[in-house]
Amino acid sequence: MKHLADYLQEQLHVEIPAGMTLCNLGKGKARYAMYKVGPVLCVSHGMGVPSLSILLHELFKLLFHAKCKDVTIIRVGTSGGIGLDPGTVVVTEEALNTFLEPYYTQVILGKETKKPSVLDRGLAEAILGCSSPKDNFKTVLGKTMCANDFYEEQARLDGAVCTFTEKEKMDYLHELYAAGVRNIEMEAVAFAAMCHRVNIKGAVVCVTLVNRLKGDQVTATNEIMREYQRRPQRIVGRYIRQQLGLD
Amino acid sequence: MKHLADYLQEQLHVEIPAGMTLCNLGKGKARYAMYKVGPVLCVSHGMGVPSLSILLHELFKLLFHAKCKDVTIIRVGTSGGIGLDPGTVVVTEEALNTFLEPYYTQVILGKETKKPSVLDRGLAEAILGCSSPKDNFKTVLGKTMCANDFYEEQARLDGAVCTFTEKEKMDYLHELYAAGVRNIEMEAVAFAAMCHRVNIKGAVVCVTLVNRLKGDQVTATNEIMREYQRRPQRIVGRYIRQQLGLD
Repeated sequence: MKHLADYLQEQLHVEIPAGMTLCNLGKGKARYAMYKVGPVLCVSHGMGVPSLSILLHELFKLLFHAKCKDVTIIRVGTSGGIGLDPGTVVVTEEALNTFLEPYYTQVILGKETKKPSVLDRGLAEAILGCSSPKDNFKTVLGKTMCANDFYEEQARLDGAVCTFTEKEKMDYLHELYAAGVRNIEMEAVAFAAMCHRVNIKGAVVCVTLVNRLKGDQVTATNEIMREYQRRPQRIVGRYIRQQLGLD
Repeated sequence: MKHLADYLQEQLHVEIPAGMTLCNLGKGKARYAMYKVGPVLCVSHGMGVPSLSILLHELFKLLFHAKCKDVTIIRVGTSGGIGLDPGTVVVTEEALNTFLEPYYTQVILGKETKKPSVLDRGLAEAILGCSSPKDNFKTVLGKTMCANDFYEEQARLDGAVCTFTEKEKMDYLHELYAAGVRNIEMEAVAFAAMCHRVNIKGAVVCVTLVNRLKGDQVTATNEIMREYQRRPQRIVGRYIRQQLGLD
C-alpha cells in the first residue's frame, strides 16, 4: 500500500513538508493500512469478501463523518486471467458470484439476501480510456468472477485437497470464458454491491498474473511480477490525474 | 502473532541461541506471519473464511512435505459473546454457519457443496480441562456461529448500512442463544471442515470481547482488551505444556 501511496504522491504532485513522509494512519497496529495522499485515500482490504466488507463499512462511515462528496472508490489488485496474456489489466464490466450471477449473497438474521453487484459503466469505460497504445500491456473490459477461496472455488488442482480432474477443471474454465469472464479474484462482488448500495461509484481494476487456460503456475520472475502489479496503478493513476485536471 | 510466539517460547522453555530472536518466517513480505517455537507453529490467518482457507491449504501442504505426524491445529482469537460476561473463553463444541447448520459451503465448478464442520470433541474437552478455578475468568464449551461479515450477518446495527430494527436484532440474538450459540466469529466453520477433511484434530478457542445480549460497544480499556486476548493463549499454552509433558 505504501508503494501505491508513494506513486500517487509523485503522480499527483502532492507536496509533503520537508523532512516528513507519508504515514500509515493505521499506525501498523490496525488490520488495514491507510495513507492519505492529497485527495486520495489508499487503503488495504485484506483477502476475501469478509475482510473487504469490514473495511468498506468502516470506510463508508469515515467518509460520511468527514462529509466527503462525489467519492469514487477503485479497487486495484491482482487476479487470475482467463484467455488473456499474463500482465493484461482487466477493468471489470460486471462482477459475478461463483454461480455467475451478479449478486452479493449475505445471510442476515438467518435469511439469505441477494444484493445486486452493479458497477458504474461510465467509470469503467473512462478508466479503460486511460490505457495508451504506448503501454507495454493490454487493458481490456471483461467480467470478473469473485470466488470465496483461492483453490477449489477457482478450479485449482494444487491445493491441499481436490475433488475434480484436470479435464473437469479445463471444461469449467472454458465455460467461464464463454460466459465473458476474463479474470477471477476474491472481492469484486461484495465491492460492487456495497458501493452500489450506498450510491458511490466503484470500479475494479486488476492485473492478471497467469492465463488459467494455459496453466496455473506463475512463471514470471519477481521483478516482472512487481512490474505487473504496478500496471493497474498506472492506469488508475492516469484516471485520477485526469479527474484532477493535471493532464 | 509475535506476542503469542514469545509467550509460548517462555511457557515451553524453548531455548534460542544467545543474541538471536524468534523470526517471522513470512519475512514481513507475505500476507501471513509465521513463527516456529519448538514443536509449535504460530501462524496468522487474516480475517474471514476466504483468507483462512488459503492459509490452511498452504499450511496442510507444508505439514505434508515436512512429514509432520499427529498434528493438532488450534485457532485462538476473539469473538462476540452471547449471554456470557466479556472476557469469557469459549471452546467451540460445534461450528455452525449462519443458517445454524454444521457445514462449510463452497461452490466448486459452479456447484454448491457442503462439507461437515466437525471438530474433535475429545480435544475440545481436554482444552476445557486446562482451565483452572484460580483463573480470573470462565472457560466454557459452546456452539460458535461463523459469519461472513462483521456487521449485518452478525446482527449489528452500527455498520454503514442496516436493514433491521433493534428488536429484530435482539430476537435473533436470543434465538442464537436458545440454539446453544455462545459466540460469533468469522472462521470456525471453514476451519473445522478443512481440518476434518484432512483428518487433523482441530479446536477453536476464542475469548468474547462483548456480551451481545447487553450491547455491541466494547467498553473495556485497551489494557483490559489486551488481557482478554491473552486468555485463550493461556488456556492453550497449558494444553500444549501438558501434551509435551512439561507439567
